[in-house]
Amino acid sequence: MKIFNAHENGKLSVTSKEVITQETLGIVYTPGVAQVCKHIADDVTQARKYTVNGNLIAVVSDGTAVLGLGDIGPQASLPVMEGKAALFKQLAGLNAIPLVLDTKDTQEIIDTIVRVAPTFAGINLEDISAPRCFEIERELQKRLDIPVFHDDQHGTAIVVMAGLLNALQVVGKQMSGVRVVINGAGAAGLAIARLLQHAGVTSITVCDSKGPIYAGRESMNAEKTDVATFCEKHDNLSDALVGADVFIGVSTGNVLTAEHVKSMDNAIIFACANPVPEIMPDVAVAAGAQVVATGRSDFVNQVNNVLVFPGLFKGLLACPQPITSDLKMKVAQAIASTVTPSKDCILPLALNTDVPLAIKEALCVE
Amino acid sequence: MKIFNAHENGKLSVTSKEVITQETLGIVYTPGVAQVCKHIADDVTQARKYTVNGNLIAVVSDGTAVLGLGDIGPQASLPVMEGKAALFKQLAGLNAIPLVLDTKDTQEIIDTIVRVAPTFAGINLEDISAPRCFEIERELQKRLDIPVFHDDQHGTAIVVMAGLLNALQVVGKQMSGVRVVINGAGAAGLAIARLLQHAGVTSITVCDSKGPIYAGRESMNAEKTDVATFCEKHDNLSDALVGADVFIGVSTGNVLTAEHVKSMDNAIIFACANPVPEIMPDVAVAAGAQVVATGRSDFVNQVNNVLVFPGLFKGLLACPQPITSDLKMKVAQAIASTVTPSKDCILPLALNTDVPLAIKEALCVE
Repeated sequence: MKIFNAHENGKLSVTSKEVITQETLGIVYTPGVAQVCKHIADDVTQARKYTVNGNLIAVVSDGTAVLGLGDIGPQASLPVMEGKAALFKQLAGLNAIPLVLDTKDTQEIIDTIVRVAPTFAGINLEDISAPRCFEIERELQKRLDIPVFHDDQHGTAIVVMAGLLNALQVVGKQMSGVRVVINGAGAAGLAIARLLQHAGVTSITVCDSKGPIYAGRESMNAEKTDVATFCEKHDNLSDALVGADVFIGVSTGNVLTAEHVKSMDNAIIFACANPVPEIMPDVAVAAGAQVVATGRSDFVNQVNNVLVFPGLFKGLLACPQPITSDLKMKVAQAIASTVTPSKDCILPLALNTDVPLAIKEALCVE
Repeated sequence: MKIFNAHENGKLSVTSKEVITQETLGIVYTPGVAQVCKHIADDVTQARKYTVNGNLIAVVSDGTAVLGLGDIGPQASLPVMEGKAALFKQLAGLNAIPLVLDTKDTQEIIDTIVRVAPTFAGINLEDISAPRCFEIERELQKRLDIPVFHDDQHGTAIVVMAGLLNALQVVGKQMSGVRVVINGAGAAGLAIARLLQHAGVTSITVCDSKGPIYAGRESMNAEKTDVATFCEKHDNLSDALVGADVFIGVSTGNVLTAEHVKSMDNAIIFACANPVPEIMPDVAVAAGAQVVATGRSDFVNQVNNVLVFPGLFKGLLACPQPITSDLKMKVAQAIASTVTPSKDCILPLALNTDVPLAIKEALCVE
């Protein structure tokens, strides 16, 4: 009831910064507004300075991979997109609006976003199912000169990396020496694998519902095939976990047992499935896990993309630059740096306002 | 300077209705938000109640016919669209955002709007050049189940009709008996002609840059051809004006002379070109005009679409119904009814807050 009350009539409000009076009407609207229009017509870059175009983010979804709910359609995804828009403002001072699409066709989604792009300063892609999300993001980054960021991939990869940087400090291990097993080979799992590889991890196993992915296996899309080129081949998840240092779950809950954790080496566990994690933290700790993170706010060490997207866009708008793997590592390090790492604190709280500032600073360093 | 200052960083702000705290984060965002998503997935009509979808208007333009500036491109049209969005909130309590498009192709514009439509409660089309605007509106009204309204056509037609209803009272003439000459055969001129015909005016002349339109004339698009079927044929604007009761200018300034006004019968003048009207009010009055309205706020009787769109959408969202000619007349009558008509007051002031309420009431009468 409380939840539904909080959503009644939507969560967002669009307002004029100033109340319009009979005196100011001719300034913010015709005839005065024509001067600003002409100014921008002469130099289109001035739209950044004199319109919403400089600070309006579109949170775009087709509603095909919403939370753990799957393909529930564009309208049903709106509450999530509104929530993100609200967080953009609160944490980064950016205006953001949901834009949900009545098409699942990759090319139509790309074309639609390209056509509405003159309105926006950036595009946050959200809850678009794999593998379409990969092509959509890649193509938009080619065609648009504003930041395009698929949060389910890179937001998750960055926040996991931030947590891992601190967790490795806690257990006294080096990135280059750890063995990591990822469960989930969708948008998040593959992006995490790629960022880990970039960070120097040499032993990575990625499992989907059929087990570890490897070159030549059946049911492999182009993205899995690409990631598999640097993955270790194992017979199954349990085998892969023996002696592993890190488990990262970004798929379904309840897949990790106490026995699994016991078979690992001073395990670091990211059990991000929501609302039911891959293993409950108390069970993991009892089985010897050194650090346990989940996607839930009611446990310590919440892995939440909210730590990434507001600061990332704030930084990219202040200091425009391509979204590379190096940039993602900078953002992860900036997030990690906002806490003094301990078993119970590898990540800051979701609404910590130091985080977007730290990210922006990191992206604006000369 | 004052104008540019008022536009710096845009005129709109998108905010969360409530500040999000660590406690409410799980209500407005994951995991709590999932309950609302599931509820809407089960019954998509609930998006109206629990998301922005119930009260968010898209102010859509391709930037091809902006104010009197013509085709200045999507970014340069943003200041106008933002201004409208601000007025939607201030006058009708509705959220509205600009959506400007990087395409001038009729079919692409239609497809793009259809695809983003699940986000919105209504579509306000704006500053899209004729004749594409006619097909775009017609097609969208067929394909979408939310209100689609091209303000340049119907907003202008409705507010002119509201002013005319009162002006005719002032001069003691009947709608059915007057002769009307319209200068301008774009979106506004043709929509005004159609609404006048619906209201019972039997003598209508519409001029474009080549003179009065009539069946079989050269340079006639399909829309002009259609309207020409009920128009009077004259050799030129001056001939048409002899003995006419009403002049309505919705094209370029300085086309009406004192001689023209003198040749009319107790003239009612709507000189809506902006910023330079077809004739200055003092010149028109000196030449015998009984009532003069312009598009400018620095003269009496301002003809401003702001009187229409906030209340119209407020009414349509409260009481959904098709946008017919009868509905447009109801809205015009509601606007007209908010003032006691006199020569200097045939229309309320642009920001009069009684107007949207009167329109909504008129549309919600059983």
